[in-house]
Amino acid sequence: MVPATTELPLIAIMIGDPAGVGPEVCVKALASCTSTGNGDGNSKDELGGLCRPVLIGDIGVLKRAMAVAKVSLPLRVVATLEEPLTDENSIRVLDPGGFDVSACAFGVASAASGHAVLDWTALGTALGESGAIQGLVMAPMDSESIKLTGRIKHIDDLQPPGTFMFRMSGALRVVPLSEHLPLVDAIAKVKPGAVLELIEVLNKNLCRWGLSQPRIAVAGINPHAMFAQDQQQIGPAIEQAQQQGIDVSGPISPDSVFRMAIEDKYDAVVTMYHDQGQIALKTSNFEGACTVYLGLPYIMLNVPHGSAFDIAGTGIAQHESMLAAITTAARMASGRGIFEQA
Amino acid sequence: MVPATTELPLIAIMIGDPAGVGPEVCVKALASCTSTGNGDGNSKDELGGLCRPVLIGDIGVLKRAMAVAKVSLPLRVVATLEEPLTDENSIRVLDPGGFDVSACAFGVASAASGHAVLDWTALGTALGESGAIQGLVMAPMDSESIKLTGRIKHIDDLQPPGTFMFRMSGALRVVPLSEHLPLVDAIAKVKPGAVLELIEVLNKNLCRWGLSQPRIAVAGINPHAMFAQDQQQIGPAIEQAQQQGIDVSGPISPDSVFRMAIEDKYDAVVTMYHDQGQIALKTSNFEGACTVYLGLPYIMLNVPHGSAFDIAGTGIAQHESMLAAITTAARMASGRGIFEQA
Repeated sequence: MVPATTELPLIAIMIGDPAGVGPEVCVKALASCTSTGNGDGNSKDELGGLCRPVLIGDIGVLKRAMAVAKVSLPLRVVATLEEPLTDENSIRVLDPGGFDVSACAFGVASAASGHAVLDWTALGTALGESGAIQGLVMAPMDSESIKLTGRIKHIDDLQPPGTFMFRMSGALRVVPLSEHLPLVDAIAKVKPGAVLELIEVLNKNLCRWGLSQPRIAVAGINPHAMFAQDQQQIGPAIEQAQQQGIDVSGPISPDSVFRMAIEDKYDAVVTMYHDQGQIALKTSNFEGACTVYLGLPYIMLNVPHGSAFDIAGTGIAQHESMLAAITTAARMASGRGIFEQA
Repeated sequence: MVPATTELPLIAIMIGDPAGVGPEVCVKALASCTSTGNGDGNSKDELGGLCRPVLIGDIGVLKRAMAVAKVSLPLRVVATLEEPLTDENSIRVLDPGGFDVSACAFGVASAASGHAVLDWTALGTALGESGAIQGLVMAPMDSESIKLTGRIKHIDDLQPPGTFMFRMSGALRVVPLSEHLPLVDAIAKVKPGAVLELIEVLNKNLCRWGLSQPRIAVAGINPHAMFAQDQQQIGPAIEQAQQQGIDVSGPISPDSVFRMAIEDKYDAVVTMYHDQGQIALKTSNFEGACTVYLGLPYIMLNVPHGSAFDIAGTGIAQHESMLAAITTAARMASGRGIFEQA
């Protein structure tokens, strides 16, 4: 039985850079699974029964995106999420205003677009932190637009502090201890306390997403995980986690652990540095990876493609990754488990 | 036109641990492409026209392997490679003697097998160093048998000093600056002189194997190759190599470079540490990788599977990897290029 509409999680979708494909793929994805949209409706059960979507972005940008994508959605701009809908098929849009779509050319980075994306993201994360929404799906930003605002130095700085980036692609799911650090500094961070914390956070999230007894693998840091550091810095964390009842194995040879995960021996792999898991993900799967930030009270998820300025506004951008991202966020927020990402 | 038989390279095949699948897959591979064998002969053009094979190992072990594999080969034990063959279809066997096949059970490691494999390998490498053979294909050893001899501490020690391990799997070919070192020590070895030396050795070998202008990629060491070390330790080596006319690019983001190579943008990737390339190879391709030692005057190549003690003696071991290894060694030794490995 499908739960009553009011019980379904609210999943907000930040529409991404207005000059990129983000807005198009958002409306295409929703139209493909909304009975009132122009899509084929085949995906209605996949999404419609899973969540209540909310768009965060400029209504003018969304109208232009619907024209480009040749779809029609019953969008309703609301001031707050508490505002009642007169038609329950309507899709809420939170639009803080102030963006001029007529000044925004497709495929061109601008400070205005960057500011809008940062403001929409701030709104989404505030709603997530307050518990008003259960998930936030982020359509692609453009790093150049972000840089032009001068508000943050690097797109990395958008990672919420204290979080870990859990990436999913195909049957492979990985989360590293650190992100964009020089490798020597990343190695220095491999300490029992840090490894244990990540194992615990990962296990807690996998359980919350609906896995009853998650199977976690921990990669070693050195070739074949056969050196003192592997045993001394990683081994104790694994033992402590096991004593807590967590199903965790390792340290496993870094060059074997990802193939084992792909073959369903593990649900997720804890990695010791950024490239360890990224090389595995990006070499084995062409499509890119969905990213979820671990350590937040809500699901925050990035779609696995960029803003594709070269095709923005043509309507040819594929919406399957966006639809999969929204579906995944909805499933995770409802504790319905994680599934293979296309 | 196929060259005259006497001009074809001599490719020696060390038959591997007598208790493993090595001897079986050697005789199966040769039978599959020798008109006098019991194979279907379909591969004759692939191998028969490419090289003159020579087996290095015990004739008793080979006879047992033929019985297990249900093939018959016209083996001829010779004292030296200069000894003339009365029948040009015969396959030479170099057997230094001293091994008792009746005492060798399938699937059991033993010092006797380890000693035999080490002796056969020493014979093969001596022939290679002297120029008597142009290639040496190594069937799988067993690390336990090797350890039992007490002659070497670790199977890694069999890597000829001063060489680099070039690994091929599918369309991906990688060679690291170092092998089984702790990662911090491997990073410390990333210096312009060392990187340049490897680029030069790789380029020379790729040219010798038949590539007219090899396209070489060099991975960075840090995430997105965006830190000072990437520019200071790797950048100058690439510039110097380019000044020599070598077609080399980098440093490229470690998490992107392997996918680019798989998509045929590069012929080979120089990596900064063991796991960088090994994670890419072993995650993207299940079958394992052929290894060639760069820096020797002959082609020395390992097959991409182990001694498989669990199925040795049953005749079910597949010989395709061994056949591909012999074919590859023969092509490389003749400068006929490298091709995708199964």
